[in-house]
Amino acid sequence: MRIRVQKFGGTSVATRERMLRVLDKVGKGLEEGNKMLVVLSARAGETDKLLALAQEWSANPDPAEQDALVSTGEQASAALFSMLLCDAGIRGRSCNGAQLGIMTDEDWTKARIRSVDTGKIRKLLENYDVLVVTGFQGVTRGGRITTLGRGGSDTSAVALAAAAGADLCEIYTDVEGVFTTDPNICSQARKLDRISYDEMLEMASMGAKVLEIRSVEFAKKFSVPVLVRSTFSDEPGTLVTGEDHSMENILVSGIAYDKDQARVSLCSVKDVPGAAAAIFGPLAEAGLSVDMILQNPSHDGVTDVNFTVSRKNLKRTLEIMEGVRETMGGLEVRYDEHVAKVSAIGVGMRNHAGVAAETFAALQSENINILMISTSEIKLSCVIHEKYAELAVRTLHQAFGLEKSSYPEDAGAMQD
Amino acid sequence: MRIRVQKFGGTSVATRERMLRVLDKVGKGLEEGNKMLVVLSARAGETDKLLALAQEWSANPDPAEQDALVSTGEQASAALFSMLLCDAGIRGRSCNGAQLGIMTDEDWTKARIRSVDTGKIRKLLENYDVLVVTGFQGVTRGGRITTLGRGGSDTSAVALAAAAGADLCEIYTDVEGVFTTDPNICSQARKLDRISYDEMLEMASMGAKVLEIRSVEFAKKFSVPVLVRSTFSDEPGTLVTGEDHSMENILVSGIAYDKDQARVSLCSVKDVPGAAAAIFGPLAEAGLSVDMILQNPSHDGVTDVNFTVSRKNLKRTLEIMEGVRETMGGLEVRYDEHVAKVSAIGVGMRNHAGVAAETFAALQSENINILMISTSEIKLSCVIHEKYAELAVRTLHQAFGLEKSSYPEDAGAMQD
Repeated sequence: MRIRVQKFGGTSVATRERMLRVLDKVGKGLEEGNKMLVVLSARAGETDKLLALAQEWSANPDPAEQDALVSTGEQASAALFSMLLCDAGIRGRSCNGAQLGIMTDEDWTKARIRSVDTGKIRKLLENYDVLVVTGFQGVTRGGRITTLGRGGSDTSAVALAAAAGADLCEIYTDVEGVFTTDPNICSQARKLDRISYDEMLEMASMGAKVLEIRSVEFAKKFSVPVLVRSTFSDEPGTLVTGEDHSMENILVSGIAYDKDQARVSLCSVKDVPGAAAAIFGPLAEAGLSVDMILQNPSHDGVTDVNFTVSRKNLKRTLEIMEGVRETMGGLEVRYDEHVAKVSAIGVGMRNHAGVAAETFAALQSENINILMISTSEIKLSCVIHEKYAELAVRTLHQAFGLEKSSYPEDAGAMQD
Repeated sequence: MRIRVQKFGGTSVATRERMLRVLDKVGKGLEEGNKMLVVLSARAGETDKLLALAQEWSANPDPAEQDALVSTGEQASAALFSMLLCDAGIRGRSCNGAQLGIMTDEDWTKARIRSVDTGKIRKLLENYDVLVVTGFQGVTRGGRITTLGRGGSDTSAVALAAAAGADLCEIYTDVEGVFTTDPNICSQARKLDRISYDEMLEMASMGAKVLEIRSVEFAKKFSVPVLVRSTFSDEPGTLVTGEDHSMENILVSGIAYDKDQARVSLCSVKDVPGAAAAIFGPLAEAGLSVDMILQNPSHDGVTDVNFTVSRKNLKRTLEIMEGVRETMGGLEVRYDEHVAKVSAIGVGMRNHAGVAAETFAALQSENINILMISTSEIKLSCVIHEKYAELAVRTLHQAFGLEKSSYPEDAGAMQD
């Protein structure tokens, strides 16, 4: 039994007409000899409507009941699409999380999938050619309905693909695939034919927003090949997959940026054991996540600690730093809420030293001052003034030649 | 563990404000020391919206998928109400048909309850004080969602009461209870304190529309006392229960009427064995239900057969009778679509002969011509011209003294 998973987002199933387009895609999958698992989101706007309804009913809705309410959005779209399948004479039916054994923890509104009942799926696929699955939801061991949180339908799709042993998980969306950078700020941005899981994780977390980050983690863990493509065209899309040698030849695959950044600087921190814990412990306790952290070597027993947080968390962060200042004494707190982060990402970086030098040179050529630098194995990030963000993206995109295809002409053949 | 069931219809849960009133009723049940099973319909208008959506998607929606779609209406109202429970600090949660083990057959859109998992309910009630149950739905053995058909929430409530061994099943609606007749056409109509299952079955099937007929059958079968009362007042309502001796002292409990009647007359039917089967067999095959059937003794080997059908079925009935006429030969088909049926109902009739004479005399006093007469153990029905329907109802209501309470002053004491 060859199985393919297809996932369609809210805009792809918003109306009957759009669902007919989805029906075409599913039909093609069947023609190619696959049994199909079709994961659907709620129709565009429905989830927001249901969440607004919950807010109307309660200032602080019980999260388990909110999940039971919100899950009806996907149940409706799965049932409506299955009607179209039945009308087309295709053996298909809708399945919700409970019916398919998509088990999650009890972390309501942002539950994590623990297991999927492979036997149930296979048994249902003996009787049906298409199972239409409600995305974004599952059930607890006690049988209560959970939702996976925003974007969770991608994770549902990848988890089902892993459980069912699908050859491919197609994520249909309203863009053509993953781009070298945001086409809205860089007209040279080019669609990538393929990208590694790790690069995709860095791109997604930086706001590339094509795939939900947890779905990519899942795909990497279970080696599920994910093809991101458009519902509204027949373009081949971008394959998110494991690394291969051809990928390592490419120094940088994409440029990401994030303007939701604020920098906090603590100056004259006494460089004693436990200093970092005293600073970041209270932030973690308050549930505030810190992005980049930098600490310079100390001079005369004092050092500077710099970090960035999401702008909406700046106010609370500064309040907490005020407490830290009183406890630790002597240090000075500064901040800058007009910064942005620009990053070059590529698995090829691992084996090449030149990326940092190239990045700094390119930014300098435009007189863009670098405020903070941070590196990982496959990413180099610079914090700069936010007014330079777009310019920096375009400059780096050009510096690494991303407007040109990185694969030979016969790249298609490599994509199997 | 003392358990009470309460069921609230769509108008009772239409808005947050109305749900707060429901919360009051549930709170009173708790105060009286009960664990509560609260069965809710979809918010007023929601089921119609979902059915319209199904029609928009398909001219002939797959019935199983339609059920999956429509069932979201009750899931939403159960979740929303449970949010209010949680906010009030009451230990409660929503449960759908699958979660509570409400098993049905696979007769989509009008499924029948086969069993309810008593163990599951009792176990949940150990952890919760209130279970908020989606009315009108269940699951098949294969785990697919079914709906019970219009008014099915009443049946859900009674079935749950039977399974859980509840002391009482309260059906909250927008009327004060069951009346001696329709207050809209007879200002003398009086709310009944109690009524037997059998009388209620006759009242309901005649269009009294307070309780769904299947729920009354269920209540009778499992001896569940059902209290019909208003969400919008604290009036005691009408208790639907088994017969007792006090009931038998009352000759007639109520007057029902039905204006959706058309009469078909077959004249000069040859009185041979199989004649009735030849007439009614084809109607049954076509799924057309016949209400009243009358056949007079034959004269000279021929007889007349009269029956009534719902008006919307008259055209098809006449088409089928045309076929019967061709097969049997000789007979003549007449019809009258301007008739109505008026019935006197009461378990006391069983032991009293005077009801028929009283009825005929009363109608004659108003010069109302009786076209057909039919009697059962607890019901006497007359078909008359529809223009006299309201007059006949008022006349009979007065003739049997229904405006006066039939119980002694201390009737309240007899009700528990």
